[in-house]
Amino acid sequence: MRPSAALGLLLAAFALLLPQGARAEDGYELWLRYHAAEPAAAAGYRPAATAILQQGDSPTLDVARAELERGIGGLLGRTPPRATAPINGAIVIGTPASSPLIARLNLPLQPLGREGYLVRSMALDGRRVTVIAGNSDVGVLYGAFRLLRLIQTGQPIERLNLADSPHVELRMLDHWDNLDRHVVRGYAGLSLWDWQTLPRFADPRYTDYARANASIGINGVVLNNVNSNADILTPHFLEKVRALADIFRPYGIRVYLSARFNAPMELAHLPTADPLDPRVRQWWREKADEIYRYVPDFGGFLVKANSEGTPGPQDFHRTHADGANMMAQALAPHGGVVIWRAFVYSDTGEDRFAQAYSEFHPLDGRFRDNVIVQVKNGPIDFQPREPFSPLFGAMPRTAIGMEFQVTKEYLGFNTHLVYLGTMWEEAMRADTRVRGEGSTVARVVDGSLFRPRHTLVAGVANTGNDRNWSGSQFDQANWYALGRFAWNPDVSARDVAEEWTRMTWGNDPAIVTPIVAMMMGSHQAVVDYMTPLGLHHLMATGHHYGPGPWVNDLERRDWNPTYFHNGDRQGIGFDRTARGSNALAQYAPEVAARFGNLSTVGDDYLLWFHHVPWTYRLDTGRTVWDELVLRYTRGVDEVRAMRRTWAGLSGRIDPQRHAQVAAFLAIQEDEAQWWRDACIAYFQSLSGLPLPAGVAPPAHDLAYYEAIRNPYAPGRDQP
Amino acid sequence: MRPSAALGLLLAAFALLLPQGARAEDGYELWLRYHAAEPAAAAGYRPAATAILQQGDSPTLDVARAELERGIGGLLGRTPPRATAPINGAIVIGTPASSPLIARLNLPLQPLGREGYLVRSMALDGRRVTVIAGNSDVGVLYGAFRLLRLIQTGQPIERLNLADSPHVELRMLDHWDNLDRHVVRGYAGLSLWDWQTLPRFADPRYTDYARANASIGINGVVLNNVNSNADILTPHFLEKVRALADIFRPYGIRVYLSARFNAPMELAHLPTADPLDPRVRQWWREKADEIYRYVPDFGGFLVKANSEGTPGPQDFHRTHADGANMMAQALAPHGGVVIWRAFVYSDTGEDRFAQAYSEFHPLDGRFRDNVIVQVKNGPIDFQPREPFSPLFGAMPRTAIGMEFQVTKEYLGFNTHLVYLGTMWEEAMRADTRVRGEGSTVARVVDGSLFRPRHTLVAGVANTGNDRNWSGSQFDQANWYALGRFAWNPDVSARDVAEEWTRMTWGNDPAIVTPIVAMMMGSHQAVVDYMTPLGLHHLMATGHHYGPGPWVNDLERRDWNPTYFHNGDRQGIGFDRTARGSNALAQYAPEVAARFGNLSTVGDDYLLWFHHVPWTYRLDTGRTVWDELVLRYTRGVDEVRAMRRTWAGLSGRIDPQRHAQVAAFLAIQEDEAQWWRDACIAYFQSLSGLPLPAGVAPPAHDLAYYEAIRNPYAPGRDQP
Repeated sequence: MRPSAALGLLLAAFALLLPQGARAEDGYELWLRYHAAEPAAAAGYRPAATAILQQGDSPTLDVARAELERGIGGLLGRTPPRATAPINGAIVIGTPASSPLIARLNLPLQPLGREGYLVRSMALDGRRVTVIAGNSDVGVLYGAFRLLRLIQTGQPIERLNLADSPHVELRMLDHWDNLDRHVVRGYAGLSLWDWQTLPRFADPRYTDYARANASIGINGVVLNNVNSNADILTPHFLEKVRALADIFRPYGIRVYLSARFNAPMELAHLPTADPLDPRVRQWWREKADEIYRYVPDFGGFLVKANSEGTPGPQDFHRTHADGANMMAQALAPHGGVVIWRAFVYSDTGEDRFAQAYSEFHPLDGRFRDNVIVQVKNGPIDFQPREPFSPLFGAMPRTAIGMEFQVTKEYLGFNTHLVYLGTMWEEAMRADTRVRGEGSTVARVVDGSLFRPRHTLVAGVANTGNDRNWSGSQFDQANWYALGRFAWNPDVSARDVAEEWTRMTWGNDPAIVTPIVAMMMGSHQAVVDYMTPLGLHHLMATGHHYGPGPWVNDLERRDWNPTYFHNGDRQGIGFDRTARGSNALAQYAPEVAARFGNLSTVGDDYLLWFHHVPWTYRLDTGRTVWDELVLRYTRGVDEVRAMRRTWAGLSGRIDPQRHAQVAAFLAIQEDEAQWWRDACIAYFQSLSGLPLPAGVAPPAHDLAYYEAIRNPYAPGRDQP
Repeated sequence: MRPSAALGLLLAAFALLLPQGARAEDGYELWLRYHAAEPAAAAGYRPAATAILQQGDSPTLDVARAELERGIGGLLGRTPPRATAPINGAIVIGTPASSPLIARLNLPLQPLGREGYLVRSMALDGRRVTVIAGNSDVGVLYGAFRLLRLIQTGQPIERLNLADSPHVELRMLDHWDNLDRHVVRGYAGLSLWDWQTLPRFADPRYTDYARANASIGINGVVLNNVNSNADILTPHFLEKVRALADIFRPYGIRVYLSARFNAPMELAHLPTADPLDPRVRQWWREKADEIYRYVPDFGGFLVKANSEGTPGPQDFHRTHADGANMMAQALAPHGGVVIWRAFVYSDTGEDRFAQAYSEFHPLDGRFRDNVIVQVKNGPIDFQPREPFSPLFGAMPRTAIGMEFQVTKEYLGFNTHLVYLGTMWEEAMRADTRVRGEGSTVARVVDGSLFRPRHTLVAGVANTGNDRNWSGSQFDQANWYALGRFAWNPDVSARDVAEEWTRMTWGNDPAIVTPIVAMMMGSHQAVVDYMTPLGLHHLMATGHHYGPGPWVNDLERRDWNPTYFHNGDRQGIGFDRTARGSNALAQYAPEVAARFGNLSTVGDDYLLWFHHVPWTYRLDTGRTVWDELVLRYTRGVDEVRAMRRTWAGLSGRIDPQRHAQVAAFLAIQEDEAQWWRDACIAYFQSLSGLPLPAGVAPPAHDLAYYEAIRNPYAPGRDQP
């Protein structure tokens, strides 16, 4: 047979093997696509990936090896065989405990802690090998993902000398998933957890979820909504929780549960849930013991107490510390933690901005050392841009964790392209000044400022049963970034965007440069078309989809957008200086001074802290009114520019993903325009001022926008 | 380069092309997998599939050709090129109108109607070709799927002379999908329709849904729940409906909407929805005109009126006919139909079995000829086994459509393997005797008995956004079977099971024989472990998940299982003879006599029609009590046998699908046991009789089963 005939037959044979549609990408593979590297690049990598040498077996080492096999097999076209002794190009994985080969290398592993790793090119028995070593198996797994990421992003791997370890102990996803699979603030379909078929059916997706998390260092998962249902603590559900925990364990992921504070009343019919009542304390102790029988490495409880109607210790005239400590004591014998949310506010008349601080700051030093107080990045509620919460840095004797929102409740849901890395970078780099310059939020969160026993970065997950996991291709970047910021709060948002882009879309600079640019500009764009100049909480009621700056009839004062923008004929903005709510006093004096002074506050935070006349002139030389209109307009223009950029990538991106992103950008442009027009129409009805020259008026009158209803918008909270 | 070297390189090159996990099957492809045929079989087929000759373009002919390219490309390893003139082995597709070649063949197309087709092997200009011809493009599309099915199921295609056409005009799926994507009685995730991203985003899944439907002849889709929301009729949603209609149109599928009877009150604030009120009539006329501007081939309205609380004409002292005719008149100028459901019952004291007949029978002849009355197969509500509804055959001057439930509300949800083809075959073959022997339900439904203007078979869909569409691999068979029974109500359930099995699992007899056997026995198994001997409606309240035969405290008498089984110390069963509710009188005398006589009713329907003492002896020689216990036990045994059968297929089935089915069968066994034990425990508490010798007692006492609650069971109705 001539070679060409053989080739022809083989082509036919392989065509048979290709399932229909296999070439269409739908986003399921996330950033772990492992598609073939460019041939030249692959040829360059292959000599350093000839085999895998794993000594010792464990579930985690096995998944590390399997991931290397899968990744290298896909990227380099040849699955590395398993070696039993060093050969040139082998990847040697293990810990000093599992691997005699690694043990005798005497690698400097000690400073890397339990989860760190080394990836080193070195000689072993005269062979060139790459060693991936850690103090624990999960460190090895993280190192394996690091090596794969190097290949995925086109980095050299011949002369590696990498050491890394997480800067934060607990790196978590909080799933706001109800037991009926409805995901609150979820825009990616139903909950991944199919409680109806658990524990019998282990959906392969659970494993892929764990792989994705391990690849970015996520090591904890809260399975259920913070607006919790006590039933999750019953044996019926604990059996299902166990099944998930068993699947996640090899990937270094522990499960946590949101615990309902009055569970002892609801499940055991105790007359009280008072945290100082001995029956209540005993109930939680026994419940903790029971949970650990199902899940020996159970992580602990996440608790939303006395917040938005949830039960809590204040119902029994006890403090948050009393409540948290009672649960923490129940978990302590097993090594579990309590993560207690500081997202609290009530209709007291106090500026909502200030309430979390007012409630929690006096409790500093009163929490057990296995309690972490989890604080949202900003003082209100996941707005497009918020100043950092004054609680960061304010509780030196308390473990303070960061709560980011990965899902985009106030940020256009899944259809708006908004990369959150830049927002989180802003939050992490904000300087609290509580211990002088450089007392950044990152240093509070990573523990380097106050050295708490535990550190934590959590993200409210954006996953669901949509095929692409996050509801859109680009929202995957926010999941990815959460992991990277949790691993290292000082990471660069741009670096993360570029890593993710290379892994998700390809290494071609003609792809990487424009996509990273889109991502880096996307957060400012959404701020501009939704809430420029420090406006906040202008979203429509309930679902928070679309604009509702005119809403002023909600039961609670501080649910109304009019409360937050405080606009009238004369001016706009929330005065939080000493003349107003004085919430600024919660910051360190330097920060309070900067935000409190009109000449230093800056445009981004102006209306967060000041009420100014419409005619107040900004540094740009324009009035607040003109600037507001121009920012809204600029936001829409930014989305138009993203659409053009994306259209230019046609042909460089697989058609299915390209088409979805293009359609979503079209929706984003529609909705950016809606936001702009509705807000300009509304604020003009207050200011009575003309639009700046050359600016298009809103397409409809205010009544048109006020009449829009979206009762079926996804992600609503449910009673 | 030596061939072997070339082969090696090519192997490597192709390995690069194979995406991770591509070889894992997840069920997304349904019965249209088009995986490679066995090499010898493929070689045999290729000479008859060398090219495609399509004259004339239309969206439907284009998708027919694309499907042949895709299917043959996958099955035979070579995508047939497009030919411009007959060559040996070409597939010639078209209609006499589109294709001069086909026109001059003078094929006997006339008797095939608008949607029929011919598939013929013949000579054309001296070349051997296969002609796929129809009177319309959609006939050609159906013929293309038929040819593909022949290859998929391993049939010869060289000497074809097939003609087929649908026996039923409207072959529909009814989606009980709410506008927030919750699917009532849905066990496969969220609604396929993502209203939030429509109309901008055309999910490729919409097209795959249309392909699947076209492949089985489904030509109509009701997009929204029969418990309808008037908002679907607003421009906001009609824009989205149009987007779906545009996607479905090339596949011969028209969209329909469930219309809320008092929409004129809710949307236009009319003071009434009285169907005889001129304002109401005008509103519906204008609404119909408006809808047809969006969707020129809109199919019509499905209406659930005065049923379970929905509004309807009786609210205004008008009849079902008044209501239906008013809507039908609005649709008539556009060729639309009204599908009016006969699923009505109220708390009147009359046997619920008899109520639909009592309400509708007097209206025979009063409906316009573009109204179809849609009747559930049985008189109660999609129970595991029901006698046919007495309405079939009782309204000779009315178009009567069949409503089957494809989703498995009362049948174990998605995790129980229950093939519904045998149940539907039972229903279709039931002889109403209204025009003498042979007056089967099928002949009522296909119109051959009374020749109504329209005929209809509808199925309540089981689709959702689960990756495998139906929530389980085997539930796909019920979607498939619905299409086949709608096309031809006299089809053989076994033939359908075999077709589906070959396309879905493979042609190997070692696969086909056991799977078909499992499917064919599966319906009797679920009847046995849930509701043997003619018991019905014993399910737990609301979600209908699991057993609840003891429930007797629901507001309405005829919602309580105790109403339906009517068991006490002495006996069990619902007396529907003249001594009881006399519902039997609604059947033709021969049927009434057969069901009404203990010696002829048969075990399957015994307790549907008779109240008998526990000690009553069946033909088996056993008492009702003993037989009941043995049937429950047999049902569990049947599931165990299915599990063994399936375990024996390990290695012959791709691992991912095999594992899911295995896990679901394990759930089914658990739940069959639960059903059996709970029901035996309960009925024993009535009968006070001992279990037959050798039969295991329930694992727990009755109180244990009564205490089980499942508040998060999927698919619940929502207010």
